[in-house]
Amino acid sequence: MKLSNLLNQIKKKQSFLCVGLDADTQRIPKCLQNTKDIIFEFNKHIIDATAEYAVAFKPNVAFYEANGYKGWESLQKTAEYIKENYPEIYLIADAKRGDIGNTSRLYAQTFFELMPFDAVTVVPYMGIDSVMPFLKFPDKQVILLALTSNMGAYDFQKLKDKQNTQFFEHVLKTSQEWADEDKLMYVVGATQAEELQNVRKIAPEHFLLVPGVGAQGGSLESVIKNGINDNGGLLINSSRGIIFTDSSKNFDKTAAQEAEKLRNACRETASDFFAS
Amino acid sequence: MKLSNLLNQIKKKQSFLCVGLDADTQRIPKCLQNTKDIIFEFNKHIIDATAEYAVAFKPNVAFYEANGYKGWESLQKTAEYIKENYPEIYLIADAKRGDIGNTSRLYAQTFFELMPFDAVTVVPYMGIDSVMPFLKFPDKQVILLALTSNMGAYDFQKLKDKQNTQFFEHVLKTSQEWADEDKLMYVVGATQAEELQNVRKIAPEHFLLVPGVGAQGGSLESVIKNGINDNGGLLINSSRGIIFTDSSKNFDKTAAQEAEKLRNACRETASDFFAS
Repeated sequence: MKLSNLLNQIKKKQSFLCVGLDADTQRIPKCLQNTKDIIFEFNKHIIDATAEYAVAFKPNVAFYEANGYKGWESLQKTAEYIKENYPEIYLIADAKRGDIGNTSRLYAQTFFELMPFDAVTVVPYMGIDSVMPFLKFPDKQVILLALTSNMGAYDFQKLKDKQNTQFFEHVLKTSQEWADEDKLMYVVGATQAEELQNVRKIAPEHFLLVPGVGAQGGSLESVIKNGINDNGGLLINSSRGIIFTDSSKNFDKTAAQEAEKLRNACRETASDFFAS
Repeated sequence: MKLSNLLNQIKKKQSFLCVGLDADTQRIPKCLQNTKDIIFEFNKHIIDATAEYAVAFKPNVAFYEANGYKGWESLQKTAEYIKENYPEIYLIADAKRGDIGNTSRLYAQTFFELMPFDAVTVVPYMGIDSVMPFLKFPDKQVILLALTSNMGAYDFQKLKDKQNTQFFEHVLKTSQEWADEDKLMYVVGATQAEELQNVRKIAPEHFLLVPGVGAQGGSLESVIKNGINDNGGLLINSSRGIIFTDSSKNFDKTAAQEAEKLRNACRETASDFFAS
C-alpha cells in the first residue's frame, strides 16, 4: 500500500489504531468452539466489529503457527478476508523474520506474494542483506524492530557504544541508509514512551508501530504526545485489550467498544493533528 | 535430546556434519516434479542418502513457509520422518524466532510439542524473556544467533561498547546467565573462522552450530581447528553444497557423496579428537 493511502485512512477515521489479531485458541470464546476453523471464525467477528475504528490489522504469526499447517491456512484466509472486505485497511504480518539474503527472499515472498500483507516486521540483528529482500517489493513496507516493549529490551537494545549511542539508535540510523520512510517503519514499544522523543530526533519522518498499550502497560496518550509527527506517523497496536476482554457470545460487541474507546482517545489526544 | 546422545553420535560417525534441508522448490530435481508432496519426497531421498554421515538435520523454515500451509505440512512430515526413522539424529528447526514472552512460548510449543524438533534457532535481539520460554522444555536446546555468516553481520553484531566488547560477545556473555551449556548453543558463521578462537574464550564448553561452509565460502578445516573443544562442540552445516549439486535422477547418490566427503574431512581434521 502507498503510505498516502494509509494517511488518508488515519485522517478519515481519526484513529491510529492497529488491532492485533493474536488469535490464541485457548482464549477464543466457547461459543465458537464447534466451528470448523475456530481461528478464522473468531477473526472474522473481530475484524467486522472493529474495522470501523481501526486503520490496521496485525496478526502475530506465532499464534497461527502454533496450530501447524491448519493455523497457516487460518492465517492465509484471515489475510485474504481483510483484503477482500476492507482493502483500505493496512495489513501487517507480525512475523519478526530475518535470515541471510537468499532465505529472507523466501520469507518476503511468503508474506508479500503468497499472502496479501502490506508490511512485515523484521529483526535487524543480521543486518543489511537480511532486510533488503523485503524492501524490493513495490508498495510494501518493512517494519524493523528498534526498541521493543518487553523487559528483555534492556539486555541488548540499550547497550551503548563509545559515543554513548544506544544499539537501537544504531539500528535507526544505519537502516535509513537502506531505504527511505516510504519503505521503512520502526517498532518502538509503548512502554518506552520516554524514549519516543529521542526516536523522533533520529527518525522524524518514519511511521512507528507502537505495541504495548493496554495489557503490557503502555499509555496511549503519552505515545501520541511523544511520537506524533506531521503525518501522524503512528500505528498504535492493541491486541489482548481489544480481542479478549469478553468471553461471552457478545465478545465482538465488546471488542468494538474497546476499539471505539481507543479511537476516541486518539481523536481527543491528537485533536490538533486531525483538525489540521 | 540429551547432549550426551549427540556426543555419542558424533564419536560413532566421526562426523560433525549437519545437513541443511533447505528444500527450495525451484531447485528440486525435475524427476520429482509430479509427486504429490515434492518437498517431502525430496527430503526423504536426501535424508535416507545422507543419514549415515550426518549427526544432525536442519530444515530452514523459510523454504517451507514459502509454500504456505502445504509447506508447513511438508515440514511437519519431514520432522516426523526423521524422528521415526533416525531417532538418534539431532533435529534442528532453523526458524530464527523470538518475540515477547507470551508469544515466544507459542513458537516454542510449535517446534517442541507440535513438532518433534530437538532444538530451534532463536534471535537474541529482544533479550531474556524472548528466549526463556524456549529454555523451559526438558531435553530441548536453544541455538542463539551470535555471529552470523552473512555480510550484514558487520552492521550490528560487531559494534563495540566502551570496553571494546563487541555486541555478539555481549550476547555470548549475557545469555550464559540464562542457562548452561546443556540447554544453550550458539550460531557462529564459518565465514567468521578468525573469530572462532575468540568465541571459544567466552564460551569454551558450548556447542556451536556453524553455517556457511561451502556455498557461502567458509572452510571446514579452519572451523574445526579454531572451534573444536573437548566434547567436539561443533555442528557444521552444509545445505546447498550437499542437496543441490546434482539435478539428475541420481541427485541422492551425489548428495551422499558430498556428505561423505565432508564427513571424511571431519574425520581427518579432528583425528586426534576421534582417537581420544
